[in-house]
Amino acid sequence: MKTYLDCIPCFFKQALFAARAALDDEAKIKEVLDRVGMLVSEIPLESSPPETGREVYRTVREVTGIDDPFKALKAESIENALELYPSLKQMREEAKDPLKTAVRLAIAGNVIDFGADPDFQLEKDVQDVLQKEPAINHYQTFKEKLASARKILYLGDNAGETVFDKLLIETMGKPVTFAARERPVINDATVEDCIRSGLDEVASIVSSGCDAPGTVLGRCSTEFLDYFKKADLIISKGQGNYETLSNEQSPIFYLLKAKCPIIAKDLGIKVGNTVIKYALQQRLGGYKPNMP
Amino acid sequence: MKTYLDCIPCFFKQALFAARAALDDEAKIKEVLDRVGMLVSEIPLESSPPETGREVYRTVREVTGIDDPFKALKAESIENALELYPSLKQMREEAKDPLKTAVRLAIAGNVIDFGADPDFQLEKDVQDVLQKEPAINHYQTFKEKLASARKILYLGDNAGETVFDKLLIETMGKPVTFAARERPVINDATVEDCIRSGLDEVASIVSSGCDAPGTVLGRCSTEFLDYFKKADLIISKGQGNYETLSNEQSPIFYLLKAKCPIIAKDLGIKVGNTVIKYALQQRLGGYKPNMP
Repeated sequence: MKTYLDCIPCFFKQALFAARAALDDEAKIKEVLDRVGMLVSEIPLESSPPETGREVYRTVREVTGIDDPFKALKAESIENALELYPSLKQMREEAKDPLKTAVRLAIAGNVIDFGADPDFQLEKDVQDVLQKEPAINHYQTFKEKLASARKILYLGDNAGETVFDKLLIETMGKPVTFAARERPVINDATVEDCIRSGLDEVASIVSSGCDAPGTVLGRCSTEFLDYFKKADLIISKGQGNYETLSNEQSPIFYLLKAKCPIIAKDLGIKVGNTVIKYALQQRLGGYKPNMP
Repeated sequence: MKTYLDCIPCFFKQALFAARAALDDEAKIKEVLDRVGMLVSEIPLESSPPETGREVYRTVREVTGIDDPFKALKAESIENALELYPSLKQMREEAKDPLKTAVRLAIAGNVIDFGADPDFQLEKDVQDVLQKEPAINHYQTFKEKLASARKILYLGDNAGETVFDKLLIETMGKPVTFAARERPVINDATVEDCIRSGLDEVASIVSSGCDAPGTVLGRCSTEFLDYFKKADLIISKGQGNYETLSNEQSPIFYLLKAKCPIIAKDLGIKVGNTVIKYALQQRLGGYKPNMP
C-alpha cells in the first residue's frame, strides 16, 4: 500500500505519542516533531507508511535517547493477554468450529495497537470480533489451504496480540515459523516479547530482520526471505504487515482489524471491520474488489 | 493560549484539508505538507495556534496559487444560514428571554467551522446548543454589562456564523462595531462575507487588520486597536479569537463551542461544551477555574 497524504498528519500524532511515552520533557518532544517535520519532504508517496514509520520511530529514539518507549506498555499488554488466555482457550473448546473461533480471536487480539488506537478496550473487542462477520471473509479458503500446508510462516504484529496468536497456532496443529520485528518499534512484538508470550512453546521464533512496524521485504534478513519464499501459507497479522505486503503475489492471508480510515479505504471496507483476506483469492461473486 | 504539542499534527490536518479545497493535484498538495514540515521547527510554543495557522494558510496560498480555497464553501455557509434566519428569528421571538436565546444561537452558529470540524451538522447543533446549559455560563454578567455598555466591539469568526451574529446584534439593540479578518483565512469571515450576511444593516463593519484565524493584537491595525482599547464590552466569537486573546485583561465575553480537545482542556471543559465566559469574572462559587 502506498503512503496517502492523510498518513502525514498521522506520522506526527504517532511521533508525539511515542515521544511522550519516552519522556516528559516538552522541549525534547518538540525537537522530535521538528525533526519529523524535516522528514516530510523526503517521504516518497510510493513507499508504504511503515517505511516512514521506521524513520519516525528512529527519530524518536535518537532525540529522546530512549530505545524502547513502549517497553512497560508492551509488558503490561502481554500480562493482560496472558490473564485472558484461559478464557480464550475455553471459548475455543466450546466452539463448534474451534479453528474458526481461534482465527477470530487472533484478529480480536489485533486491537492491541498503540500506533493506531491507544484507547482500545480488549475484552469488549474480543466479544465484538467473535460475533461480527469479517467484511472480507476467506476463512473457507484458509481452512482448505491450511489442511495441505507444509511450510507455514506467521508474521506477528503487536506484543500481547502474540498470546492470541499462540492460541491460533496451537489450534492449527502444524509446525509454524513465527516472525517478530528485529528491534522495538511502537508496541510491535520482538523475539523477546514472543518468548514472554509463550509463543516459543508452539512455534519456532525468528526475527524478520526488519525494524519497521511492518514487513518491508527489502529490509528483511536473507534467512527470513528464505522462509517467506518457501512458505506455502503465510499468515500476516495487522495493518503494518498488510501495508508493506499488500502488493505481493504470495499465499498470504491477512488477518486484521481496520483501525485506520486509509487502510479501511484501501481494503474497500469500513473502520472497525475485520478481514480474513487471501492475497491470491480470485474475484468471486460477493467479493468486493479493492480500490485501485 | 499557548501552542500545545498536540496542535502540531493538527496544523498538518488543516493544511491538507485547505490544500485539497484549493486543488486536486497530489504532488502540489504534498509540496504544501513538505513546506509546512519545514515550518515546524520555527513554531514557538509560546505563540498562539492561530499565529502558526496564519503561516500554514499562507503556505497553502503560495504553493497552490489559490488565494481563497474556501470561497465557495463560505458562500454556501452564508446562504444556508440566511435560509435558517427566519426560523432563528422566530425562536428568539417566542423565547421568554430573547437575549438569552440570541446569545445561545450566536454560539450555535459557531459550529460552522471548516478548520476545527468540517463535518458539522448545523440544524442539529442549533437545537443542542439551545437546550444544553453552557459549561461556563456568565450570561447574567453579560446581560448586566450589556445594559450599561456604550462602546461595543464584536469580534467575528466564521462566514455563515455571521448571520447568527446579526441576530444577536439586532437583539442587543445597541451600536456595535463588528470586526472581520483582513483577508481570507480558512472559512473566517472577511468584510465582504459580513456584508453578504447582512451584518452591515445592524453594525459598523471594520477589518481587524489581522490575517490570522484569530485576533493577534500585534498584527492588528491601529484603527482596530483603538476600538479594542476603548470598548467597554467585547464579544469574542469562536476558538481562534479565544486562543489569541485568552491572556488579555479586557472586558471580553468569549462565546464559543469547544470543538478541539486542547481548547476544551485549556478552558477546563469537555469537547462539545459551550461557554459564555467573561475574561474579568472573579472566581465565584460554582465557577471552575481554568487550567494553569
